[in-house]
Amino acid sequence: MAVDDLDEAIERYERLFGAVLEHRERLDDQGVEAASLRVGSARVELLAASAADTPVGRFLEGRGPGLHHVAFEVDDVPSELARLAAAGERLIDEQPRRGLNGLRVAFVHPEATGGVLAELVDDGDI
Amino acid sequence: MAVDDLDEAIERYERLFGAVLEHRERLDDQGVEAASLRVGSARVELLAASAADTPVGRFLEGRGPGLHHVAFEVDDVPSELARLAAAGERLIDEQPRRGLNGLRVAFVHPEATGGVLAELVDDGDI
Repeated sequence: MAVDDLDEAIERYERLFGAVLEHRERLDDQGVEAASLRVGSARVELLAASAADTPVGRFLEGRGPGLHHVAFEVDDVPSELARLAAAGERLIDEQPRRGLNGLRVAFVHPEATGGVLAELVDDGDI
Repeated sequence: MAVDDLDEAIERYERLFGAVLEHRERLDDQGVEAASLRVGSARVELLAASAADTPVGRFLEGRGPGLHHVAFEVDDVPSELARLAAAGERLIDEQPRRGLNGLRVAFVHPEATGGVLAELVDDGDI
């Protein structure tokens, strides 16, 4: 979820859904300050922009706070990327990169998924 | 996820993410034709509008296909609604209603969550 104010959003998710903060980090290469929260067996990532001229900053400017992307945990991000690339699916990341909390992530282009920015994630080395 | 073409979207999620269709249904009172798919341990709901003048139809018209809402499974929807109402949080549904596949659902207003339409769901009687 893209949010305007990370502190306020964390408090809101704790209050509304019993979310439990597990990690918070600034990812300068992605222009975000992010927080990962457990909500039951799921995980919600709250994303605030570190500047207006960043992907999340532009998203917030254009559409306001709200659902930004969805992440699927997979066994092995590189092999999933290879499978999708071989099938001709459009990717944002040809290679995995480091995401929040040291996780290995890669993004699939919304053009491939039908308008949904989708992230693949595992806990492999990057 | 709001989609333009339900058949095409189901095939796309099967191909991209190994999704498995578990249920498909037209919900006339909500103006959608919906499909529920398992994606690993998660569930993705694909929503096509049954007409332009429906909530999902207006969403598609305004923003195109993409992430529409997020659902959290809870133990008991009525008691969660009561808790949120008592806390003064803005709800769309004061009472639960029937959702896809006979599930009991209620929606929390995006104003409460910071721009995210959130659904509470359980398998209780409705």
